[in-house]
Amino acid sequence: MPVAFTIDAFHRGNFWLVQPDGKGHRAGMDAMMLAAAVPSNFSGRLADFGAGAGAAGLAVASRCDQSKVVLVERSPEMADFAERSLAYSGNAHLADRVSVLVADVALSGRERVAAGLADSSFDYAIMNPPFNARHDRKTPDTLKQQAHVMEDGLFGQWIRSAAAVVRPRGGLAVIARPQSLQAILDALVGRFGNAEVVPVHARADTAAIRIIIRAVRASRAGLTLCPPLILHEAGNDLFSPRADEINNGRASLFAD
Amino acid sequence: MPVAFTIDAFHRGNFWLVQPDGKGHRAGMDAMMLAAAVPSNFSGRLADFGAGAGAAGLAVASRCDQSKVVLVERSPEMADFAERSLAYSGNAHLADRVSVLVADVALSGRERVAAGLADSSFDYAIMNPPFNARHDRKTPDTLKQQAHVMEDGLFGQWIRSAAAVVRPRGGLAVIARPQSLQAILDALVGRFGNAEVVPVHARADTAAIRIIIRAVRASRAGLTLCPPLILHEAGNDLFSPRADEINNGRASLFAD
Repeated sequence: MPVAFTIDAFHRGNFWLVQPDGKGHRAGMDAMMLAAAVPSNFSGRLADFGAGAGAAGLAVASRCDQSKVVLVERSPEMADFAERSLAYSGNAHLADRVSVLVADVALSGRERVAAGLADSSFDYAIMNPPFNARHDRKTPDTLKQQAHVMEDGLFGQWIRSAAAVVRPRGGLAVIARPQSLQAILDALVGRFGNAEVVPVHARADTAAIRIIIRAVRASRAGLTLCPPLILHEAGNDLFSPRADEINNGRASLFAD
Repeated sequence: MPVAFTIDAFHRGNFWLVQPDGKGHRAGMDAMMLAAAVPSNFSGRLADFGAGAGAAGLAVASRCDQSKVVLVERSPEMADFAERSLAYSGNAHLADRVSVLVADVALSGRERVAAGLADSSFDYAIMNPPFNARHDRKTPDTLKQQAHVMEDGLFGQWIRSAAAVVRPRGGLAVIARPQSLQAILDALVGRFGNAEVVPVHARADTAAIRIIIRAVRASRAGLTLCPPLILHEAGNDLFSPRADEINNGRASLFAD
């Protein structure tokens, strides 16, 4: 059965996303902020875990012009959208550096390797996991539910897999809700260190709506709580200049 | 042997602290920020864990004029300074609401009760624990070392004791370094919920130097990451207006 879709511009038209229309998780600012956690001069091999239609991974490929990106997605339907994104003419300048792998990142051991995720085969992993706790929200739409509902311990599974596939001194970036901070920190223990946390606030005087955490494989350094990203200035519904830069691939979140 | 001391004004002269001169942990902004985590209208019984000469507890008594405060300090030498602070004429308007208890807050069970810390006997606990990890810094001064060196698991011990002495729906406030965030969150599990975290930055564009965490006994609500407190505005070494208000007992940290 054909699924209705849209083709949306990101990074001011530098790349495009083919994604289901009104069904499933629709990519936006979260994916752009996650991609912005990767250093601008990154030139290695990056895995986008739970890539969906490929927004975050394509955003890395768009900004870091020496990077090679693998979009890892469990759902064949969403992976098909990722393939259609790569085949779209507007992404022709990126397509040779980006590929799609249909695999469940929650697999472990030999099953994960057999699925195409070999140990220490990446320099970076990024993830925008389904981060609404199961009891938080009811979503009638099954595709959306798969993308939004984080099962208990799924942060642990995803970060364990990231630790397996990322080489020592390679990087990890995660975007999540603040409520998931502890689960993420707990999952990093013994795997990733030197964690840097950026709280994201809609406005300077309201609580954070997201956290972005970056960490280094096999580092033992402690946590840094970075200055927050404020999306909107007081009395203004437009993005702040800094949020606009990040949303459009003009800046990295950590100024590197 | 007599110990040299100083008598320092806080809250613009509303209370004074008698403390050792150059030895031990000298109270300052940390204690004032911790005290500011208590709601302005707080009128119950509060325990200041590891009170030292009494800075944070006296700051609560100074700002919350219906509060009753117990300064809990293990070191007889520091507890003696707390007693001298209470006896100082400049604190006469507070002294009938403040008392000193020489006790180790790391005690558990019957030993803790026997030391004077009965179960559910407080409405609030605040703590400024010794928060430099043992390997971080060498301090030749033994008194200073006792105050600054956090032993492994001491957050767990202190927060376990706080959970015992604070009544259900009572409060907890902790000030610590950002590196201790995970240890604190882990210690709260099953004891305190509805945690609110305020990062404290020296300047808007530098990493946080402190975190202040407030939580509610027996609550099951999730974590909130609050807007940060910025101590200094760009290009200015003076305290920001908000930091100055908090430092001087004019405002609460959580605007309540």
